[in-house]
This record gives sequence, C-alpha cells and structure tokens, in this order.
Amino acid sequence: MFLILDGNGPQYSQLTRAMKAAILEGRMDAGSPLPPTRVLARELELSRTTVLAAYEQLRAEGFIDARRGSGSYVATVQGGPKLHVSESTIEPPSRYIKRARQVQNRLIARLHHGLRYDLQYGSSLINPALNDVWARELARAAAYTPIDAISSQGLPALRQQVCGYLARRRGVQALPENVLIVSGAQQAFSLAARVLLDEGDPVVLEEPHYFGAYQTLTAHGARIVGVPVDDAGLICADLPRPAPSLICVTPSHQFPTGAVLSHPRRLELLRYADAQQCWILEDDYDGEFRYDAQPLAALRSLDEGDRVIYVGTFSKVLFGSLRLAYMVLPTALRDDFVTAKFLSDFSCPTIEQVALAHFMEDGGFERHLRKARKELKSRREELIHGLRQHAGERVEVVDSPAGMHVVVWLHGYDQAHADALIELAHERGLGLYSMTPHYLNPPARQGLLLGYCGLPLNELRDAMQLFGRCLDEIDVRVPVGGSGSVDGS
Amino acid sequence: MFLILDGNGPQYSQLTRAMKAAILEGRMDAGSPLPPTRVLARELELSRTTVLAAYEQLRAEGFIDARRGSGSYVATVQGGPKLHVSESTIEPPSRYIKRARQVQNRLIARLHHGLRYDLQYGSSLINPALNDVWARELARAAAYTPIDAISSQGLPALRQQVCGYLARRRGVQALPENVLIVSGAQQAFSLAARVLLDEGDPVVLEEPHYFGAYQTLTAHGARIVGVPVDDAGLICADLPRPAPSLICVTPSHQFPTGAVLSHPRRLELLRYADAQQCWILEDDYDGEFRYDAQPLAALRSLDEGDRVIYVGTFSKVLFGSLRLAYMVLPTALRDDFVTAKFLSDFSCPTIEQVALAHFMEDGGFERHLRKARKELKSRREELIHGLRQHAGERVEVVDSPAGMHVVVWLHGYDQAHADALIELAHERGLGLYSMTPHYLNPPARQGLLLGYCGLPLNELRDAMQLFGRCLDEIDVRVPVGGSGSVDGS
Repeated sequence: MFLILDGNGPQYSQLTRAMKAAILEGRMDAGSPLPPTRVLARELELSRTTVLAAYEQLRAEGFIDARRGSGSYVATVQGGPKLHVSESTIEPPSRYIKRARQVQNRLIARLHHGLRYDLQYGSSLINPALNDVWARELARAAAYTPIDAISSQGLPALRQQVCGYLARRRGVQALPENVLIVSGAQQAFSLAARVLLDEGDPVVLEEPHYFGAYQTLTAHGARIVGVPVDDAGLICADLPRPAPSLICVTPSHQFPTGAVLSHPRRLELLRYADAQQCWILEDDYDGEFRYDAQPLAALRSLDEGDRVIYVGTFSKVLFGSLRLAYMVLPTALRDDFVTAKFLSDFSCPTIEQVALAHFMEDGGFERHLRKARKELKSRREELIHGLRQHAGERVEVVDSPAGMHVVVWLHGYDQAHADALIELAHERGLGLYSMTPHYLNPPARQGLLLGYCGLPLNELRDAMQLFGRCLDEIDVRVPVGGSGSVDGS
Repeated sequence: MFLILDGNGPQYSQLTRAMKAAILEGRMDAGSPLPPTRVLARELELSRTTVLAAYEQLRAEGFIDARRGSGSYVATVQGGPKLHVSESTIEPPSRYIKRARQVQNRLIARLHHGLRYDLQYGSSLINPALNDVWARELARAAAYTPIDAISSQGLPALRQQVCGYLARRRGVQALPENVLIVSGAQQAFSLAARVLLDEGDPVVLEEPHYFGAYQTLTAHGARIVGVPVDDAGLICADLPRPAPSLICVTPSHQFPTGAVLSHPRRLELLRYADAQQCWILEDDYDGEFRYDAQPLAALRSLDEGDRVIYVGTFSKVLFGSLRLAYMVLPTALRDDFVTAKFLSDFSCPTIEQVALAHFMEDGGFERHLRKARKELKSRREELIHGLRQHAGERVEVVDSPAGMHVVVWLHGYDQAHADALIELAHERGLGLYSMTPHYLNPPARQGLLLGYCGLPLNELRDAMQLFGRCLDEIDVRVPVGGSGSVDGS
C-alpha cells in the first residue's frame, strides 16, 4: 500500500490522514480489506499501537468498517461522480491568466531544497523564542477578542501602533486613518495595481528589481518600464517622459543591489512625482535593519506633495507566514485602497492583529527587533569576513551596512560560468542565488544574492569555506575570462 | 483636551494610545505642557494612578519630556513635513476604482449599531466557549509550527481535512490537490473574477443575490445578468443564450430567499454548463446548517463535467474574523487559481491553518458544528414561533429548515411603508434588514431578512414582541394597502 506520512503531528494522525487520502482518491476501493495491523506496522516501520489507533480513528469517522473476526474493510464514504483527476490544459480563460501564466513561466530564482547550507534571501530570521512569545500573544488575543469584529482598514489599535513605530523608527508621520493593514507586501502591490492601473498603463520598476512586484504588476497588465540603478539608487534622470502612472522604488536598501537612494535623488524623485502627478510606491521591505546608525528616514518622510504610498511588512522582521503588512496612503487614495481591500478579501484576520498590536504596545516587538538587528549584524560580518577570506579578489562585495542579504559580483564571469558555479555549489550542498532573474534584460555582470537569515554563525563560516572551494574548482575548469563552455562537454 | 479612549485593553494603555494620537496628529504641540495628572484624571474620570502610568509610558517611549519640578511637556517626536489631513477627491485613477466607487455608493443593507436587538444576518453564532478552544488551538499551533513555511495553495494537512469533511458532510469527493485555501468567500469571488473574466464579460447572478458577490464582480467589470429565483431556486429556463462566462449560485439555501435548488433544476443547470462550456460558482455559504435531515449534497457532488467551482467558508460556522475559506476547483482551472492567489497575497497565514487542521482532525470542529446546529435550530423555532404569535397574518414566513436567517414577506407593504417600519423599529431598539438591496431591480414585494445568530432565545422572544408592536404602530399610521406617504408629513 502506497502511504506517505507527512510528518505533521503524531504518527497515528499522519497514518490516518494518509489512509483517508488513499480511500478518497480511490486507491483503496470500498469493500476491500485492510491489511492486518501487524502487517501494516511492519511495512511502515510503525508500532502496532500506532496502526491500531489510526484504524480506530478511521472507524470512528466512518472510513472503514470492522467485521467481527474478519478484520477491517474500506467503507463506502461517498457517492457522486468519480474524481476529476485528468490534467487538461485549457486556453487562458482571461487576459489576466494569459499574462499570469507567462510570468509564472519566467525564470525566477531557483529555490534549493534540502541543502546543508542554503543562502536563500528574503526569508526571516529564524528565532525559536519567537514561537513561544507569539503563541502567548495569540492565546491572549484569542481569549478576549470579540471574534466577530472585522474592519476592512485594519484594527484601529494596530494602525495606531504602526503610526507610533513609524514615527519613532522611520521618521514617517502618519495618522491611523491613513494606514491600511494588508496581508503582506504582495497584497500591497496587487491592490496598488487594481487601484491605480488599467491594462497597458506604464509602471516604472528599478532595474534590477524585486520580481514579486514585477510578476503581480505584469499579470495585472501593466507595461513595465525599467529604470537603471547605480550606487546612489534609482537614476532619476532616466525617468521616462511622459511619466508613468506609478513608480515602484526601494529607497532604504535597493532590492536587490543594496544601494541606498541618495538624498538629492530622493528630492529629485519627489519633485518629478509632484510635477508629473504620478504615484510612488515606496517598498521599505527591510528598512529596519541598518547596522551603522539610525535607520535612514523613509522617502515618505520627505513627501510634501502626498504622492508616496509607503509599504512596510512584518514578514521580514517577524516571520513570513504571518501575512501582515501595512500601507501608509496618500489621503486622496485612502478610501479607494480601503474599498479595494474590502472587495478583495474583506479584511485581515482580527485575532492576529490584536496579538500584534499588543506585542507592539508592550514593547516586545521592538525588543525583538533590537535582538534580531544585533544577530543579523554579526551574521553579516561573519559572511563578509568569510567572503574576503575564501573568495578574496575573485568577487566584489557590495558592503552596504543594511538588510538581510549581501550582493557579490563575480569578476570576469559570464552567464554560463555563473550557472556552472551555482550548479556545482548545489551538488556540494550550498544553495546560491543568481542576480540575473531580477533583471528585465540580461545584466552586464554576473552576481549572487547571499541571504544570511537562515544560517547561524558557524554554518555561515562553513558555507563561505565551501563557496571558496567551489570557486577554486570552477576556476580550474574554466580560467576566469575563459569561454562560455564550462561543463567540459 | 480631546481624548477618546477606545475601550481596548487596560485604561492606562487606552489613555497612552489616545495621547500618542493627539501628539502625532499635532493636536498637542511639541513643547507644550501636559495637564497635571490630577487635573486630567478628574477631567477623564480616571484614577490618578492610571494617568500616571500613561505619562510614564509616554515618557519611556519618548513622546513626552519630564522637567524636574515643572511637570511634563510634549516632546518633539519627529521631523518631516506636516501630516496630510486635507480631504481631496480625485478622479478615479482606474476603471476598477470608477466602478468600485459606484458599487460602494449603492444602497446596501444598512447596518444598525448599538441597538438592543439586532437581527443582523450573516454573522456567526457567538459562542464564548469557542474563544477558549481557539486560543488553545492557536497556542498549540504557534508553538510547534515552522513559522516561515508558506504554501500558496494552502497547508496540505488542512486541505486534506477539508476533503474528509466535504466527503462526509457535503457528499463532495475532492482531492487535496484540487483544494485552494483562501481568506474568505469574498476572496473566492475576487479570484474567480480575475481568473475567469475580462472587463465586460457576462456573469449570471441569482435575482435576488448576495450583494458581496455583486460588488466584487461589478467592480471587476463583469456585466451582471440577473436570473430570477422561485421556490425551487434558480429558474434555469431563464438562463441567457449566448451563455455567460460564469454563473454564481447558492443551491443549498438560496441567498437571501432560502429556496433550495431542486434536484431536476440542479441537473438542468449542470447540463447547461456542460453544453455551453461555462463555469458555475457554487457558494455553499451555510449548507452545513440544515435542521430537518442530513444536509443536502452539494451541486458539486453531481458535477460529472467538472464545471463547478465549490466555495465553502469557515466564517459562518466558526467566526467571521477568522478569514479562512476553501475552494474545490475543476482540474482544468486549478493551477490558474493557485497562481492568482499567489499573485494576490502569496498565501493565507500558516499558524491559523495548522490550528484549524488540528481542530478538524481531532473532532472539535464537528462537535462545535453539532452544538451550533442544535442552538440555531432552537433559535429558528423561537423566532418563527414569535413571528406567528406577534406578526400573525401580516407577514408570510419562508420556512425553509436551514440556514442562519429567516425571510418574511410583508403583506401589502410598499417600499415607503417598509422603510417606515425599519425606521420605527430602529428608534425602538430593533435592527431590521430589508430584502430590497439584494435585488438588481426593485422587487415586486417587500421583505425582511431576520438573522437569529446574534440573539439568545429570550432576547429573540422579546425582539419578536417588539416587532409585533412596531407592526401595530405602522398599521395605525398607514392602513395596509394605504398610500406611500407614511411619515405623517
């Protein structure tokens, strides 16, 4: 019997689930006998007690019948037509889906799984203590929250906390009435597209840029215009005329290059938006994490003309599966965004908002941030130290003292060369991520994003040693500056 | 000083929040002195300890400065430009917003607030025990869930539980791989619109219908075609030719009339969809709650052609602010819906899905449902008994043994007459809801939706007595069948 236990919860529940699936999927026919518990226990390397408990549960739920003296049989759990399992590809039912299928197929950063050292960027710092703290906050909130209360704009107490936090940490003055709680930065992009863009409307993205924004905007039907980035962030002189409807930027820590938008450029960008009456979406995805001084004030804090839509997220500073983020909206757009949120999914869940508001109010959130900042700072230093030691002159490290990832440029590498390095590292148990998928057009040089959230200090050290060995090996195969054929074939 | 305490949490936190707001909103200027604690305590009718605690908190967070011997002063909390508080109305930035503003302005069911007896429909049964159970489930899930794990389609264990539940209770056979977890039925409508409809595409809604679906589909740009409903549900003979892209139906318990779609009509509807190759969205919003026998099997259970998108929600059976629902998708559409969910908001929060999967697996969910069904049945009986006793022949009660609301038709009432009744009842502390906003065109007769989830038995009894007195009073003012002028002016 083909049964896969999913590893969640006690073994008997895993077995129960797997057997239900087999019955529902028709892999175990109604009326057919189940294997004796002893046999199944041996086959799956489980204790007989576990199998007995699973059978008992399946019996209680009506999935199996027990006949006295003759074992258990699969019950008839439902009538109705057969399951539809055949795959069929249909024409895209809408223009949205036509575009969405295309962006889904675009080469995005390959995710490595099950590797010993995975330098994935974009995840949050794993902090086991946070599970316990968050469990307490949720239990507290669930116990006293009127659970039928819903606000499309978001819980007032949470919006208030967000404002206090933004004023203290990001220099952004905002009224709770201009804050909208959303379920992640992705929803912020999606709502911005709905509210601001018709199909075919132009949108400026930084080149390179965050591919999540690219995907959502492209599926919506936006016409993407890339504007290049240098060491001082977006090159505002290259902004198009006529102006786009929307400009998406990451001023605090450009994604993915790490450049910080300079003060003169900030003013230039705001002047452009004022003059052209276009909107700016400021994605402050990791603005909190700066290791040299006070975090740089957000673009929104300079926004005299009320043209900046500010997006901040809790996914990075707390954890990704929380699905809570916030937008500070220009007054002229506020009601439209709240309407769009209402029409998309009514609101975010209430208990989680109550828990988060309390966590912020009682200071736990900022204590957590301080700890995370300290930890990330040492990881960053360890990573850069390791890079200098093991990669040396072969890479250029972009050393902006912020964020949750480091960018390195590979000297003299071409695309095939870089791909071979990533492939080799993968074979050796090291997950590396290319910069290339974050560009609209093939970039002039090859780079890597090295995320340091997922690995503790000692593993980062080992990972950099391994990285150095991979570079050595590639250099032997293909001397730097060599031809594109790197796999020896 | 104008300070409003929001009633959430301890008083000192409420006061802290209110003062922060006043400072951030510029209602208390930097450098200005705070009132002495004794004075503010008297003014707000709080204890001085509460005010002292709030001042201490504000000081700790840097919102106020204390000068020795001279009281406290508002600190300079941030620089940057002034807050943007002026309201301005701009042209709709997109066609979506143009349409969304129109549907927002449409007369929807007025919500009563702060009334003694509110017969609001669509809320869930308030069950204080559920808070405690859910608090335990959340704490348990938060403690062991890998909090960075995300799946756009939804947690596999929850999808598995949903399939088992649907097989047992709704006669629907589904594979976990065809289930998508979404954040409420509203998101299901919104995703269906994105995946299936371009602007201008026709969609059939029942007439009358659920206005949430109407709003979302209209804002998306769908062209709404109303098809009338009778005692056997949607009149399939009236379905348009050429066929629409999508047909939205509520077969188990038509919203709002309560009609159950008859078996022959179900087959007719499915034949139509097969022949015309259009999609059906089955909104099974309260299919669980039937009080006479087994719940009727869902339309999806008869769906040989794989044309039915089934939507079920936990908002009604658990609580509205949970924001979790599920879709069973035709195989041909599954990947497109998962993509649309991914592009809209990545995924639903993980901890809540783990908690719900466990609650379902361990039987707590179905125990809760059994209790809720029993409670709702007695409330329904009480309400109908009260209606018969106090409203008598003046109303016609639609007595379908299902759901969470009752529909009554008002004999011989016109629109003005019904409005006067709702107005009078509101003045007397009774919240009544008209059927009219659920129609595309003014209905032939006047009706009310009476929700019985929010009131316990004794209050339902009192509410019906009050309802009878309101009818008496209106009848005196305007004899039934009288003219439209009812307010005596």
